[in-house]
Amino acid sequence: MNAENADFVNFQGRFQRSKMTDLNLMRELAIEGQTKILLLVLDGLGGLPQTPAGLTELEAARTPNLDALAARSICGMSTAVAPGVTPGSGPGHLALFGYDPLRHEIGRGVLEALGIGFDLQPSDVAARGNFCTLDPQTGLIADRRANRIPTEVGARLCAKLRQIRLSGVEAFVEPVKEYRFVLVLRGEYLYDGLTETDPQQVGKPPLPVKPLRPEATHTAALLNQWLADARRLLADEYPANGCNLRGIDKDPGLPKLSEIYKLRCGAIATYPMYRGVAQLAGMEILPTGETIEDEVETLKQHWADYDFFFFHVKKTDSRGEDGDFEGKVAVIEHLDAVLPDILALEPDVVIITGDHSTPAVWSAHSWHELPVLLASSYVRPDSVMQFGERPCMAGGLGHIYHTDLLPLAMGYAGRLAKFGA
Amino acid sequence: MNAENADFVNFQGRFQRSKMTDLNLMRELAIEGQTKILLLVLDGLGGLPQTPAGLTELEAARTPNLDALAARSICGMSTAVAPGVTPGSGPGHLALFGYDPLRHEIGRGVLEALGIGFDLQPSDVAARGNFCTLDPQTGLIADRRANRIPTEVGARLCAKLRQIRLSGVEAFVEPVKEYRFVLVLRGEYLYDGLTETDPQQVGKPPLPVKPLRPEATHTAALLNQWLADARRLLADEYPANGCNLRGIDKDPGLPKLSEIYKLRCGAIATYPMYRGVAQLAGMEILPTGETIEDEVETLKQHWADYDFFFFHVKKTDSRGEDGDFEGKVAVIEHLDAVLPDILALEPDVVIITGDHSTPAVWSAHSWHELPVLLASSYVRPDSVMQFGERPCMAGGLGHIYHTDLLPLAMGYAGRLAKFGA
Repeated sequence: MNAENADFVNFQGRFQRSKMTDLNLMRELAIEGQTKILLLVLDGLGGLPQTPAGLTELEAARTPNLDALAARSICGMSTAVAPGVTPGSGPGHLALFGYDPLRHEIGRGVLEALGIGFDLQPSDVAARGNFCTLDPQTGLIADRRANRIPTEVGARLCAKLRQIRLSGVEAFVEPVKEYRFVLVLRGEYLYDGLTETDPQQVGKPPLPVKPLRPEATHTAALLNQWLADARRLLADEYPANGCNLRGIDKDPGLPKLSEIYKLRCGAIATYPMYRGVAQLAGMEILPTGETIEDEVETLKQHWADYDFFFFHVKKTDSRGEDGDFEGKVAVIEHLDAVLPDILALEPDVVIITGDHSTPAVWSAHSWHELPVLLASSYVRPDSVMQFGERPCMAGGLGHIYHTDLLPLAMGYAGRLAKFGA
Repeated sequence: MNAENADFVNFQGRFQRSKMTDLNLMRELAIEGQTKILLLVLDGLGGLPQTPAGLTELEAARTPNLDALAARSICGMSTAVAPGVTPGSGPGHLALFGYDPLRHEIGRGVLEALGIGFDLQPSDVAARGNFCTLDPQTGLIADRRANRIPTEVGARLCAKLRQIRLSGVEAFVEPVKEYRFVLVLRGEYLYDGLTETDPQQVGKPPLPVKPLRPEATHTAALLNQWLADARRLLADEYPANGCNLRGIDKDPGLPKLSEIYKLRCGAIATYPMYRGVAQLAGMEILPTGETIEDEVETLKQHWADYDFFFFHVKKTDSRGEDGDFEGKVAVIEHLDAVLPDILALEPDVVIITGDHSTPAVWSAHSWHELPVLLASSYVRPDSVMQFGERPCMAGGLGHIYHTDLLPLAMGYAGRLAKFGA
């Protein structure tokens, strides 16, 4: 865009802002600075008591360092997406990164590709694949998950499917786990806007891929050709004698955090999917190890290089999904133990929260609000003396949304110009 | 409008309300009444503690009258514009007056003209002018503020620039302070949608004014001719041998409060800018003196004549900007001392808050929420016994937005009809 057009867009923006996302307001106000912001995400942090009178995982954990930080912070409760809505990992993180997750979605195919560390290009079309069992007589779906074949079998079948050749595009087939795989098409003229093939019911045939807009017609034809070849190659395999494609999508082309907020953003995460989402948001991925200590070491090494750090702790969510209350408590206590090393770097603004709740008693993501803590020299400390769900309900931030967090961090970091004269 | 059209508009409105401003809802529901609303704005009221364990300015101030009022009020915290966003005086007041400040903006040129009490007409185009130093050899900007020339020099140069004649329009040049002045063009066919001339960097030439829409082409040409004449007249002045124009804009043409809310609105403010913003919103300006006592006297004199009073106290903000914690405390205590005289008038609804925070430790406007108090015979008093930031965090209003305040006041004043059957 040349400067003249930029002027024109800004002028339009001024009068049309109400129709646009708040990202435009942030883009307009963001200024460069020397301050540093740390967003510490304990995946699935929010919990529930095991008995009505009991404590949540976070409340039960012995967290002297989080509590001391909460005491000098402003705290509150935050909704990741919308009241009552349980976020997937994609929307939960998009919201933490300041994107309205109801406007910006990452397709399941893209998330699955990011989750295995696939180097997805902006023009690639990615689909989540499911091996399934087709009735040999009727061709109707008999088992949508092919009796959950072992991961090794899935890997062998993926190798077989790599034989498929499509005119003008490359087709990558990568195993994920059990019956799940990823298909990525790479080439020119590939578009998203495509239906899924899984009818989501047994006793029905797999559906063809249909284009939802004219540009996607060619991509649909390529995928249908790939599916026909795949079914031929799988015909003598049992129970995985068929497959379906779901969530066929491209990189959503998010406006980059670096550009919106004028921040150099570094991401530290042990799992590929979170690195992938951070990358879509325009962060640089900092190589790290497997443990929280490795992540802290990475943070220290790169402290001088970035203005904003996304620091992701995965295992709170894993233990929650396992229904392992004590295990989740232990991960929180583990993070608490390394917190002094993190705070010794003297970030100007620290936000600690989760992308969604994963209460051990629920053994899955949930819709519950997240406790959140914001520390800075310029907060009005509230009455919260302990980092936990019940204390944070009385916090000075009140009840906010995840999408408020990055703008708040920018304000506290002195990185937003005054709005209007 | 005849009755049939009115029906049609209401019918449309019902389905389009989500796309429209809430002002239409207010316009639809507002009814006349005998009740009186007082909006008492302590400019820059919100503060911060000087040490983490300390008190804010408002908390430190000895305010027996505000505290007694808070005890029979419902209190809360209010965001002026958006989380993390620091409001200028224009947006802060627009929000207090019920206008979404992200949809309605007042240009810097207009605010500057209002700030010196210039009698701006709706069709005028106003610009903030800055004298600057141009390198005599290269013509590039050497100092964007002309070494902050004394106000008297600025005034002499403005007198010189009044010689400039433009075809078909009048050009008013008024000094503001030091290197700042206001240029107002008055005539027909003047449009806003114009770029600034200040490149915001030294070592670059002043830019021409460019139209951002076709209608503004003629106005841009007039301003460029004025600038060419101005540079000729200033050529032998040093260091103020050039000038720039910024924030070139017109009266935003706000829908008037009197019309939306069916209120006769009076404004009492000691500073021209706040009188100007109130005037843009459709209030009548009540002449007053320099002190808070003068303002109270004005309020008493006009008590019978209006339904809604905007009462503005400036110096809380001034002392905050100065970094003068004790000075700001003293202004708050001063207001507290006259509060009984104000309450003796028996307003039906009193709202006390600020347009934005100006913590003395930050010495500037800030993004922090504002404590707010709403008193009426019909509130459910909450547990807040002291008017201060931390007490208000636990208030019964919770966390609201400034744009909620006028609708709340209207409700408590019994001036909104029931919505729907």
